[in-house]
Amino acid sequence: MTRKAPPRVRALVFDVFGTVVDWHGSVAREVARLRLPVDGAVFAKAWRAGYATAMDEVRRGVLPWTNIDGLHRRILDRLLAEHGITLTAPAAADLNRIWHRLDPWPDSAAGLVRLKTVGPVATLSNGNLSLLVDLARHGGLPFDAILSAELFGHYKPDPEAYLGAARLLDVAPNELLMVAAHPSDLRAAARCGLHTAYVPRPDENGPGGAMEPCTDGEFDVVAADFLALAKALAC
Amino acid sequence: MTRKAPPRVRALVFDVFGTVVDWHGSVAREVARLRLPVDGAVFAKAWRAGYATAMDEVRRGVLPWTNIDGLHRRILDRLLAEHGITLTAPAAADLNRIWHRLDPWPDSAAGLVRLKTVGPVATLSNGNLSLLVDLARHGGLPFDAILSAELFGHYKPDPEAYLGAARLLDVAPNELLMVAAHPSDLRAAARCGLHTAYVPRPDENGPGGAMEPCTDGEFDVVAADFLALAKALAC
Repeated sequence: MTRKAPPRVRALVFDVFGTVVDWHGSVAREVARLRLPVDGAVFAKAWRAGYATAMDEVRRGVLPWTNIDGLHRRILDRLLAEHGITLTAPAAADLNRIWHRLDPWPDSAAGLVRLKTVGPVATLSNGNLSLLVDLARHGGLPFDAILSAELFGHYKPDPEAYLGAARLLDVAPNELLMVAAHPSDLRAAARCGLHTAYVPRPDENGPGGAMEPCTDGEFDVVAADFLALAKALAC
Repeated sequence: MTRKAPPRVRALVFDVFGTVVDWHGSVAREVARLRLPVDGAVFAKAWRAGYATAMDEVRRGVLPWTNIDGLHRRILDRLLAEHGITLTAPAAADLNRIWHRLDPWPDSAAGLVRLKTVGPVATLSNGNLSLLVDLARHGGLPFDAILSAELFGHYKPDPEAYLGAARLLDVAPNELLMVAAHPSDLRAAARCGLHTAYVPRPDENGPGGAMEPCTDGEFDVVAADFLALAKALAC
């Protein structure tokens, strides 16, 4: 549903983990498939939680610039040790690359096809570029460009990421629509002048999982999924 | 035809102007469509020639970093003045954007579809990112990623462009295949350790136009077009 009139938009950028792809379900399924002696849902959430902390350490300069593959691997090694799980080096490397093979939400690809008629659709994710390329190929996601925090040397919610995306797409910040399932990401985009579309993904943390709170009317558009977003933008 | 066994390749990067799209024909047709009092083929060639010179001035530090839209516009303004042609500001801006609407060669899109089965296919062009996004959308070119000299602050043939592409795609230089219609581009890529595929485009400078010379056996693969390249790479 639209809260306000759709903004004048010339390009769209998308958060990816949780917004376009289902990291929780994909990681939990992989852990189950490998028959690791741990609950897949618990493991997925711990892995993702560690990532937010590690990324913040990069943002605050505690860690030097490290890409998401590297951060995921640091956390994975710690989690495996905590659970007393030993994997061969190739098996650990392959498990780490589950983040390159996350399944999209059912509406993601079809929604992007329609949203492309508004203008270019691009990722704007903290995932490294090669990871995002793999996700797009795995999920048949027809992005026009793959933009990553890696290109700017700054993770979201640093302003350099949002403003860098506008610069590369050659649009003004207020001609760019940020699409995300996370209010904190959208608030940071709005502070840079971008328009915002909130697409809540209630199952992002698993069925019945927690969602970031937000207030009514906080974002330009609220839509239940990408097809509803396309409808709200009249495409 | 293949000169040597196809190399081990995990990703492909493509020169764009002349290799994927027909800049000469597209610009000449636009000049004719606008009924400018100048020969379209001559105008196209002068515009393109000025671009190489201007880009080299950026590479040598004579000009500060200027993107291709900016360089194209500098040259266009000079050419229009030389021919005594006056355009309104919107008309000049729109003519400059013909470089965002260049038509692909007939085999480009279908060839890319097949070449994607080898691994990610990306642009590696001196064109700015937004221009390349527009070209891909205009021509239905299914690139997995848009890589541009703009991301590295270095125009080809500077090594930073080739090595930066390998880094972002997370492959070793010798796992990356550079595809181009220009021997000079391929030689620079080879100096960085990339594999090379030469796809001559005899009509790049118009029918009967000049081509850069090269010697037999200089590149890993030589193919008449992208479909022949896909066949040479066994995909």
